[in-house]
Amino acid sequence: MFKTVEWKNNSVVMLDQTLLPGKVVYRKFSDYRQVADAIKKLLVRGAPAIGVAAAMGCALGALGIKAAGLGEFRREFKKVSALMASTRPTAINLFWAIERMNRAVDSHCGGVEGLKKRLIAEAKNIHDEDIKVNRRMGAYGGRLIKNNSTVLTHCNAGALATAGYGTALGVVRGAVDAGKNVRVFADETRPVLQGARLTAWELMRDGIDCTLITDNMAGYMMKKGLIDCVVVGADRIAANGDVANKIGTYSVAVLARAHKIPFYVAAPKSTMDLRIKSGDSIPIEERSADEVTFIGGVRIAPDGVKTKNPAFDVTPARLVSAIITEGGVVRAPYGRNIKKLFP
Amino acid sequence: MFKTVEWKNNSVVMLDQTLLPGKVVYRKFSDYRQVADAIKKLLVRGAPAIGVAAAMGCALGALGIKAAGLGEFRREFKKVSALMASTRPTAINLFWAIERMNRAVDSHCGGVEGLKKRLIAEAKNIHDEDIKVNRRMGAYGGRLIKNNSTVLTHCNAGALATAGYGTALGVVRGAVDAGKNVRVFADETRPVLQGARLTAWELMRDGIDCTLITDNMAGYMMKKGLIDCVVVGADRIAANGDVANKIGTYSVAVLARAHKIPFYVAAPKSTMDLRIKSGDSIPIEERSADEVTFIGGVRIAPDGVKTKNPAFDVTPARLVSAIITEGGVVRAPYGRNIKKLFP
Repeated sequence: MFKTVEWKNNSVVMLDQTLLPGKVVYRKFSDYRQVADAIKKLLVRGAPAIGVAAAMGCALGALGIKAAGLGEFRREFKKVSALMASTRPTAINLFWAIERMNRAVDSHCGGVEGLKKRLIAEAKNIHDEDIKVNRRMGAYGGRLIKNNSTVLTHCNAGALATAGYGTALGVVRGAVDAGKNVRVFADETRPVLQGARLTAWELMRDGIDCTLITDNMAGYMMKKGLIDCVVVGADRIAANGDVANKIGTYSVAVLARAHKIPFYVAAPKSTMDLRIKSGDSIPIEERSADEVTFIGGVRIAPDGVKTKNPAFDVTPARLVSAIITEGGVVRAPYGRNIKKLFP
Repeated sequence: MFKTVEWKNNSVVMLDQTLLPGKVVYRKFSDYRQVADAIKKLLVRGAPAIGVAAAMGCALGALGIKAAGLGEFRREFKKVSALMASTRPTAINLFWAIERMNRAVDSHCGGVEGLKKRLIAEAKNIHDEDIKVNRRMGAYGGRLIKNNSTVLTHCNAGALATAGYGTALGVVRGAVDAGKNVRVFADETRPVLQGARLTAWELMRDGIDCTLITDNMAGYMMKKGLIDCVVVGADRIAANGDVANKIGTYSVAVLARAHKIPFYVAAPKSTMDLRIKSGDSIPIEERSADEVTFIGGVRIAPDGVKTKNPAFDVTPARLVSAIITEGGVVRAPYGRNIKKLFP
């Protein structure tokens, strides 16, 4: 299996997802600013993978700090974590991972060199825990997927979006690992085409039956009875169960409801933001117009055309059939049941 | 204003829409087989424009027939019209136009040379009538569009999809011509990107405010209250009011209903197929997988990935707020009210 992002000999090694599926290229970063830049430019993407990359970026930044004492180190580390936090606004896992790194810094009593080692260990922990958490989600979620069924997914919430195994595709893998026969329909997911480039790629590598469709075919496939359930990931989940995820997720949720098809969200607890009451308050990243007007360097729209490019949308909790977490499957009322995950 | 397709000095001149918006190139065809090929390859597209092109292809074919008498001419003309009819299966205007040409052939009493002239005149009539019909639809439909409102459209049902003025965009132009301030949101319309390439291009040329979005953003824009109504064209309308149109139209209609936004279809009577009871019987063209996996010659998905590529879908009449025709605005019950258009 491929690695999405990895700590290796005091550097961060990352699969460059912008080049997939054409080329499999790994980038090695020894400066945390390169990691921040890689997150911004989508070399690594997917909420859990962004969290892991940010933690490793923090560890890399920590390694480079020349400080006489803990106080000076903490001041310098604030700058590192501020840069990592400025990369992308929507996925909460980014801030969750940076906060974990900061807690390690704040609670440390020993020397600076010891703290650096501790931060590297913490980043590696975040990485390793993510895979474990995904496998647990896969086991819980896999039970929701019926044998001989077809799952529609949007964007890539797979091994590539995590440290490994995946969230939404982890649920598919969980069902397959349980011996079920599962087919996947993958929305191509414009503008960045994570479905066409990444989901199709990783499912084909795993030998899981995958059919690629354009985003606007999802409704037609549901109407024809070809979709049994929808499983997507999440970038942030509010306390009331509203789900921010890749642009287009909301449309899929409305279509699923209209066709009485279950709509499942697979996300670790680190994607839940209990400080945010509802999806209305989740910041939505607006990305460059070029992502809409160019594909693979080819201009597809008139020069100077106006565009919108929100990278995410919010699906209200009422359209979500269940949220699959490492703590179990959560159903409505979400406000109460999400809280129970955090005793 | 540009011409989409035109009869000129015994040849058919066509704007090559596959090269838009990058290049404005006109192709001149003097063999009807070239016209058939151009329809297949989407140099001309849009139900009314396909009808006009097919009629002109028939006229071109007629011109080339060397026949001693009417009987021989009719046999040869059957071959010409059969080839034109084999180009694309969904848009009924194609068959409607070919049928009109055949009626002229069948009802002719004079000599072969006179019939050739008559067929050229008939093709030109179909062209000229289409523009008149679109302007009438624009006047009727324009009244449904409120001042200072935003119209979402899918695919291109504009001047480029017709002999001129457009059906859905004719309605927008009708509102603008009536002095209203109208903004358009254009779905890019994967896989062939008629929205990004064609709708944006022709609206920008007309100075009509246009914002390009990817197909999966439509729901988000509706949820944010940015869309006041939807206007689309049609490729075939069944006797019960079910509407076949570009893939993705059905999803937009479901989303519009979920957001209580009016969903209008603008189509000439020639798009109505009273011989077909419901949308279930409308043949849906399945096009090449390459349209999904390549954009502008660039591969965007893994080699060998499975895809689906239905070019159209069917929106059930219950999701259609009104059908705008040259005979007036038709509302439910469609079965009865469509019949009234054909006394």
